[in-house]
Amino acid sequence: MKVVILVGGVGGARFLLGVKQALGLPAIGSAPESPHEVTALVNTGDDVWMHGLRICPDLDTCMYTLGGGIDKERGWGHSGETWTVKEELAEYGAEPTWFGLGDKDIATHLIRSRMLRAGYPLSQVTEALCDRWQPGVRLLPMSDDRVETHVVIDDPEDPDQRKAIHFQEWWVRYRAEPKAHSIVAVGADEAKPAPGVLEAIAGADIVLFAPSNPVVSVGTTLGVPGIRDALRKTRAKVVGVSPIIGGKALRGMADACLSAIGVETSAEAVGRHYGSRKESPEGVLDGWLVSEGETVDVPGVAVRDVPLLMSDVDATAAMVRAAFDLVGVSGA
Amino acid sequence: MKVVILVGGVGGARFLLGVKQALGLPAIGSAPESPHEVTALVNTGDDVWMHGLRICPDLDTCMYTLGGGIDKERGWGHSGETWTVKEELAEYGAEPTWFGLGDKDIATHLIRSRMLRAGYPLSQVTEALCDRWQPGVRLLPMSDDRVETHVVIDDPEDPDQRKAIHFQEWWVRYRAEPKAHSIVAVGADEAKPAPGVLEAIAGADIVLFAPSNPVVSVGTTLGVPGIRDALRKTRAKVVGVSPIIGGKALRGMADACLSAIGVETSAEAVGRHYGSRKESPEGVLDGWLVSEGETVDVPGVAVRDVPLLMSDVDATAAMVRAAFDLVGVSGA
Repeated sequence: MKVVILVGGVGGARFLLGVKQALGLPAIGSAPESPHEVTALVNTGDDVWMHGLRICPDLDTCMYTLGGGIDKERGWGHSGETWTVKEELAEYGAEPTWFGLGDKDIATHLIRSRMLRAGYPLSQVTEALCDRWQPGVRLLPMSDDRVETHVVIDDPEDPDQRKAIHFQEWWVRYRAEPKAHSIVAVGADEAKPAPGVLEAIAGADIVLFAPSNPVVSVGTTLGVPGIRDALRKTRAKVVGVSPIIGGKALRGMADACLSAIGVETSAEAVGRHYGSRKESPEGVLDGWLVSEGETVDVPGVAVRDVPLLMSDVDATAAMVRAAFDLVGVSGA
Repeated sequence: MKVVILVGGVGGARFLLGVKQALGLPAIGSAPESPHEVTALVNTGDDVWMHGLRICPDLDTCMYTLGGGIDKERGWGHSGETWTVKEELAEYGAEPTWFGLGDKDIATHLIRSRMLRAGYPLSQVTEALCDRWQPGVRLLPMSDDRVETHVVIDDPEDPDQRKAIHFQEWWVRYRAEPKAHSIVAVGADEAKPAPGVLEAIAGADIVLFAPSNPVVSVGTTLGVPGIRDALRKTRAKVVGVSPIIGGKALRGMADACLSAIGVETSAEAVGRHYGSRKESPEGVLDGWLVSEGETVDVPGVAVRDVPLLMSDVDATAAMVRAAFDLVGVSGA
C-alpha cells in the first residue's frame, strides 16, 4: 500500500510511528523488504539559517524519531545531547542564544549546510542524511525552495508599529505569547513542490494529515502551489486527524496560530477550514477523524470520533487504522 | 615600543607570551593601558575549509593561548574541550575524520565562517573574535586572501604519480611521514598582505621571527608579495630565533619541511636560508639567535647563542630580551 502523510514536527513524527506500526512495519528503523511505501511530506516553513547553519526542525524531528535517535522526553533533538557549542557561542555574544542548538544536532546541520551550499537540493540532502538514520519512511520536504513562516506581531520597541519575525523566534523565543496578527509563508508563492511530492500524492492509496498544526505545519505544505490541486485530484482518499481535542490544541500553542487566521480552536472549525473535496472549491478532505465523544459536522466529509491521544505507538496505530476504516481502505 | 613578530601556531603562540612578559605586559590577557604595541603577523597557510567551516589553526592557537583558553598540555585547542560534533560527523561517515575539531572550537569556526561568507575580510573577523579573548596583542593574518600550503607527495594509490595534498592532511593525518617532494603556497602569488601588515613592519622598532617552522609558518608569511620587501626596507632591526637545536627541530617535523626545500636541518642552514639584509639580495635578518653552545656563521648577520628552550614564560622572555640585546634595542 502507498500511504502519504502530511506532517509537521513532534506530533507528526509520533504519528508516523503509528502509521508504520499500523502497516506492520517496525516503528523505529527500516524493514529490509516491505510491500508498503510510506511517504511523509514534511513542512519546511520552520526552517531557518542560524549561525550559518541551515536548521530543518521538522525534517530532523521526523528523522531522529523514526531512526531511534530522538530525545523521547523532550520530543525534539537528540537523546544524550550536549550543548557545548551553544554555550561557547553565547560566550562570544553571538546571537541568537535562545535556540536549542545541540552539539549532535550541529553535525546534522553542518552536513546539510555544506551540501546545500554545494548546490544539492534539500530533498537530496535529506535522502543523504536518512542514509544514516534509516527512518523506514521516505521523508520528502514539501519543497526544495526556501519558504519561511513569519509572524506579524506588535513591535516590542514601538507599539505603534508591527514587525514580522521568523516563526522560530515567535514560537521558541517568545513561546507564541505576542499576539499573531497574521502568519505569512514568505516565498511560498514562487515555491515548487519538491521532486516526488506530486507523484506521491497522485499515486497514493490513501493520504493522511497528521494531527500537526493546521496553520504552520499542514497549512504551510498546503500553501505550496500545486499540492492542494494534487490532493483534490488524486484517486486516493484524504483523511485528516484533528489536532484539537475538546476545544484545546493537542500540542501547545496551535490556538494562537488558528486565531491569527480567524479559525476557531475546535475540531469542527479546523475540519471546515480544510474543507470537503466534494463540496468546497478549495477543500481537501474526504474524512475527518475527531476525538472520542465530539459531535462534529463538516459538510461533505465523513467524520468519525475515536480516541485521539498519541499516548503510545499502539494507541497511535489504532488512530491510523481508524483513519483507514473511515474511508474504506483496508490497512495491513 | 613597537614590536612585530612573525609567528606560526603552537611555538609562535608560546613565543608571544614571552614577548609580552619581556615588555612588562601580562602574558595572558590584555593590559588596559600600555606604552607598547605588539603586532603578531600570523601564518594563514595552514587554514582550511572543513565541514563547511573555515579553520585557522595558527590564528586560533595564538588567540586561545594569549587569551587564556588554550589546552596547555596539547598546546592547541581549548582547555576542557569536548568532541561530540566530531564523533557525530563520523557517525554520518562525513570526511575528514582525522582532524581534531573540538566542540568549543566549532563555535569560533561558526562565527568566523559566517562573517567570511557575509563578506568580512579575515583580518576584521579576527579582530571581532579577539574582542572576546583579549589577547593583548594585535593578531593580524599575514593576508586576507586565501593562501593554502599544499604538499606534493607520492600518490599512495599510484606510486608512479604524485599528488598535492593540503598541509593539514600531510601534517595531522599522515604525521608528515610521506616524503614531501615540494611545498607550494597555493594562491600566494596573487595574495596581498592584510591591511596593517606593511605599516606595522615599516613602523616597528624591532621585528622578531618566532622559532616557528621556517618553511610553512615564517616562510609562508615571507612568501606573501610585499612582506619580504617591507622587512628589507624597515628601519627596525630584524632578529630571528632558531627553531633548530643541535640539528633537531625544536618542534616536530620541521625537518621534513626543510628537506623539501633543500635546506639542512641546522641553525646555520636556516639562518643562511633567511639570509642577511645587508649581504644577501633577498635576505631579511640583522640578528640570529641560536641555541647555547652552537657555533653558527651567517655572513652579514649578528649571531648569538643563548638558551632557547621555551620551557616556561620566564625562559621565553629571557630569549626575547636576548634578541633585543643582540641588535642593541633596549626592551622594557
